[in-house]
Amino acid sequence: MLLEPIRWEKNSIVFIDQTELPAKFRYIRCREIDTLCSAIRKLKVRGAPLIGVAAALGYALAAINSKALTVAGLKKDLKSAASKLAKTRPTAVNLFWALDRMEKKLSHASSNNNVKELRKEILKEALCILDEDRRMCRMIGKNGERLIKNGDKVLTHCNAGMLATAGYGTALSVFYAAKKSGKKFKVYADETRPLMQGSRLTMWELMKNGIDATLICDNMAAATIRDRGITKIIVGADRIARNGDAANKIGTYALAVLARYHGIPFYVAAPSTTIDKNTRTGDDIPIEERNKEELIYVGSKQTAPKNSKVYNPAFDVTPAELITAIITETGVYDIKRFRRI
Amino acid sequence: MLLEPIRWEKNSIVFIDQTELPAKFRYIRCREIDTLCSAIRKLKVRGAPLIGVAAALGYALAAINSKALTVAGLKKDLKSAASKLAKTRPTAVNLFWALDRMEKKLSHASSNNNVKELRKEILKEALCILDEDRRMCRMIGKNGERLIKNGDKVLTHCNAGMLATAGYGTALSVFYAAKKSGKKFKVYADETRPLMQGSRLTMWELMKNGIDATLICDNMAAATIRDRGITKIIVGADRIARNGDAANKIGTYALAVLARYHGIPFYVAAPSTTIDKNTRTGDDIPIEERNKEELIYVGSKQTAPKNSKVYNPAFDVTPAELITAIITETGVYDIKRFRRI
Repeated sequence: MLLEPIRWEKNSIVFIDQTELPAKFRYIRCREIDTLCSAIRKLKVRGAPLIGVAAALGYALAAINSKALTVAGLKKDLKSAASKLAKTRPTAVNLFWALDRMEKKLSHASSNNNVKELRKEILKEALCILDEDRRMCRMIGKNGERLIKNGDKVLTHCNAGMLATAGYGTALSVFYAAKKSGKKFKVYADETRPLMQGSRLTMWELMKNGIDATLICDNMAAATIRDRGITKIIVGADRIARNGDAANKIGTYALAVLARYHGIPFYVAAPSTTIDKNTRTGDDIPIEERNKEELIYVGSKQTAPKNSKVYNPAFDVTPAELITAIITETGVYDIKRFRRI
Repeated sequence: MLLEPIRWEKNSIVFIDQTELPAKFRYIRCREIDTLCSAIRKLKVRGAPLIGVAAALGYALAAINSKALTVAGLKKDLKSAASKLAKTRPTAVNLFWALDRMEKKLSHASSNNNVKELRKEILKEALCILDEDRRMCRMIGKNGERLIKNGDKVLTHCNAGMLATAGYGTALSVFYAAKKSGKKFKVYADETRPLMQGSRLTMWELMKNGIDATLICDNMAAATIRDRGITKIIVGADRIARNGDAANKIGTYALAVLARYHGIPFYVAAPSTTIDKNTRTGDDIPIEERNKEELIYVGSKQTAPKNSKVYNPAFDVTPAELITAIITETGVYDIKRFRRI
């Protein structure tokens, strides 16, 4: 099964509302950039590569919706759109990478085109980013697949799957490719508090794709590694610094420490758009802190005193020294080799 | 504030329904041993020391309710009651310790007493266990208090508090004693999935007692240790083996590994009734696995596909080598010294 987490259709962006999964599987149509920004902030559309694709499509949507009659007018509208999109979430670099690429396209194409043609060029670039993302994800799977052995028990965290990308996924793409090769292995998925992307999204898509998946709470990872014999850990990333430090969903750093303690490899799978050459080390990656209500309620159920103090970072940074290798669309890079790329 | 999580009142057991906290604070009155067994299984009354006290009171309740006219008849009824209580939860040794002590009392007292007097003796013993638990907890706090320094940031897991005992708590008793001594420190509490004893119970009682407490998700512990500078970890225990291996709420083992990696001390606080000389090592401790629904729903909200495979161990074992010291009512024992006790 290939999911289409996002697509361009009739001058609008259509995407799966990921906050409704797994209870409901439904698409939302988004005709305005403000609606898209709100959807990104609320994690209706999430996952670093998918946020990048959504931002590119959002930029194109703003171009289509712009009433500007001149190139200068369109540029002004797009500047405002890019600024709104950039403010939605701070950690995933794919968002900034996509906006940067769209702005470069605008700048290059604007000299030779009128407003109408420019709009077309911009949409074409956004759709190109979408296609590229899908191709990169497929290649991540092909490259990472050789790391999976028969009998492996692999732990993953959050959702680095089809639902985090334009299709296939990053960490989960490795599983899909390994299954296609006929390998027998088991996956354990951390539920990933507070927003449960592991239990809601990863379990859903792994089961839909016939992968042998078992759900655990995040705090069961250590016992599962030791008592159930986890053989490796594969996760995604929201931003990888030049030195190989990787920001990913909160809880990833803990898994890397556990992998080291138990002597098993720890892999990060991500398209090269996640690697930020402008970020020197993990210390330079901004970490989004989200609101305290995410820890005080689950749905309508109150799970903590209402006036609790809460610390709710959405990501953490895993230092390169705890990462075995980084899997991208161009290959599997031992962390020492990665630093030399 | 001293809570009374359980008490004996008018020939019945009265306890706080801990599944309702923090939204509702209410007591349940329990007149039948079957209701008590169900309450223990459903974690309405939970926490290793408190389960021990509840079992002792349950044994007394069975004695009071017994219609036996002879000592032999009473013994038969109590054997059946003990068997029911023993089957409720397998990991906390305090349960078996309390039943064993009640049975010894019955055996010693039965030769010199008639049925009526025997019932009184049994109730007296149960109330004695309750009082002792409270005294032991208070002493754990006094002994552990010297480990807390001004400026400490201490992480704890699950609920090893007043609500887990007849009063004061174990790990949290250390905080209450340190606060009483005027020390300034902060506590971080893991929410403790799947049943949220950390967010529901620990946050509730720490806040009620004026302790500076901050709630985190379990998967934030590693980042919090590193990025917020946690200085030590203190947890409770459900059973401590002769070699110092300690079973405690799932997730504890992960914290011990994280403490070792970050070079901070890891303490286990428990009354000596939690130490089981009959259990040689952690490998001999039975680990309760609970039902999969605990991970598929939170309240009425579905958080995973309904047919998900789930691994749901309620406890894990932390090897003695990762424990810095064990705090009991008789002192603070460096783990090497503990093994010689």
